[in-house]
Amino acid sequence: MIQQLIEKIQKTKAPICVGLDPMLSYIPEHIVKKSFHEFGETLEGAADAIWQFNKEIVDHTFDLIPSVKPQIAMYEQFGLEGLAVYQKTVKYCQEKGLVVIGDIKRGDIGSTSAAYATGHIGHVQVGNNSFAGFGTEFITVNPYFGTDGVKPFVDVCNKEDRGLFILVKTSNPSSGEFQDKLIDGRPLYELVAEKVVEWGGMSMDGAYSNVGAVVGATYPEMSRILRKLMPNTYFLVPGYGAQGGTAEDLKYCFNEDGLGAIVNSSRGIIAAYKQEKYAKFGAEHFAEASRQAVMDMVADINSVL
Amino acid sequence: MIQQLIEKIQKTKAPICVGLDPMLSYIPEHIVKKSFHEFGETLEGAADAIWQFNKEIVDHTFDLIPSVKPQIAMYEQFGLEGLAVYQKTVKYCQEKGLVVIGDIKRGDIGSTSAAYATGHIGHVQVGNNSFAGFGTEFITVNPYFGTDGVKPFVDVCNKEDRGLFILVKTSNPSSGEFQDKLIDGRPLYELVAEKVVEWGGMSMDGAYSNVGAVVGATYPEMSRILRKLMPNTYFLVPGYGAQGGTAEDLKYCFNEDGLGAIVNSSRGIIAAYKQEKYAKFGAEHFAEASRQAVMDMVADINSVL
Repeated sequence: MIQQLIEKIQKTKAPICVGLDPMLSYIPEHIVKKSFHEFGETLEGAADAIWQFNKEIVDHTFDLIPSVKPQIAMYEQFGLEGLAVYQKTVKYCQEKGLVVIGDIKRGDIGSTSAAYATGHIGHVQVGNNSFAGFGTEFITVNPYFGTDGVKPFVDVCNKEDRGLFILVKTSNPSSGEFQDKLIDGRPLYELVAEKVVEWGGMSMDGAYSNVGAVVGATYPEMSRILRKLMPNTYFLVPGYGAQGGTAEDLKYCFNEDGLGAIVNSSRGIIAAYKQEKYAKFGAEHFAEASRQAVMDMVADINSVL
Repeated sequence: MIQQLIEKIQKTKAPICVGLDPMLSYIPEHIVKKSFHEFGETLEGAADAIWQFNKEIVDHTFDLIPSVKPQIAMYEQFGLEGLAVYQKTVKYCQEKGLVVIGDIKRGDIGSTSAAYATGHIGHVQVGNNSFAGFGTEFITVNPYFGTDGVKPFVDVCNKEDRGLFILVKTSNPSSGEFQDKLIDGRPLYELVAEKVVEWGGMSMDGAYSNVGAVVGATYPEMSRILRKLMPNTYFLVPGYGAQGGTAEDLKYCFNEDGLGAIVNSSRGIIAAYKQEKYAKFGAEHFAEASRQAVMDMVADINSVL
């Protein structure tokens, strides 16, 4: 699966994914009003607004990008109605040729991780039939349980040609509280990185593994070390833009071949029209602002490669 | 919220929760057949079978127990149809007077954790209305992101009188891979425990905090230390029964007042009829086998308190 993503990155020359993480507050009033008019100020109304918003952003950006990363929490907060839009968004993006990274950060004991893997990147058996639940190409995984909590995800990757990004060093301010703690002189995230390499060895796909790593853009000195520790691991890099990471910070996430990382931006793209820089587009043309923001982000990142 | 749970535990004299983690393979053939007959071998058929199975178990055990712990992954594997049954099960258990611990193990950066908290223990604002998504009393949380990834959950607990159980030491075989690593001579799980105590201090409810900890039954020597480190923290204890933990192993999870822990059993209760011990009930009377298994579990645990 990682090869498919790499090919799309090479074709678009855009090592990025657009984070489809809609908050109601990001959605222009004309969309929200229309949805509320049709469905009321209800979960259905919120879900419809999110769907219209997503669709317009995807329609205006899909030809420029290889992939999207919907953050499932932003849908899950609206319960079943929200999750139905998550599913609909995943399918729509796939129809548009995009690789979908489901940002779900699941992880549990073995049998439970197997169920999550089945639901998000696999197929569930019901009698003589099998069904995909959410059916994304990639998902993010939390490693806290260790190997037996991660292995079922890797197994489904091998069976169904799918991929993972496992949390190694996250982008948030307090990520160091546990992740940076020194164990025999080395931070925990390096130990996790070594395990990711080990797990990744079970699912190679060309020069890279289907088992990637989440490495925050906000800690460039650490990504430099991690890049060396994990030469065949693709990095999913959150934290660019709104969270403070710059293109310069990202440099070390990439290998010398210009590959090895895919950088996410969520708010910076989907709510671009709210930034002064893109205010000229106006709320009505929010998706055009997103398109411009994608082009600017791609240029920014390519300038350091 | 923890006081509500404690009162129910004291009333039932049963410091346990029943893990409603249905696999299709646990469900007796007569139920599966009926559901498939009505809905086909489809996700709807699977979801209906799970619902009928859950309902019968709850109907046969609710008067004996304070709480249930549905594992959301077992529903999520059936996509939206599965999650609808998760929601329906949560509501049904609440109508029966049970405290519901949503075993969701979510955790992310701050804004994303806030969305998960909203969807699972809070209310989401849509225009002038607010709605509960999944509406459980407690959820489980993964601490890998550190304080800013956990704080939004604690905030919602305070706002809505809800509770958490944060992963400290999990019950699975490879939990030690990262959790047991020594940091300045002390295992990581102790550091997490100290943070849980700190976070818990922000949400006290009587002698205990609304912020509890997940401490596996399978590592008794560790639970003894953790019990001392976290005197005001309630433990949610997985791993009893099918995973190998015995009542003797659980002893140290409790405080001297007989409180401080709630022990989960999933397979051991819901699939009791498949054990030789309860085979006499037969598949038709699977829920009566579950009732007997609950009584036996309660007696077993109370024998060491």
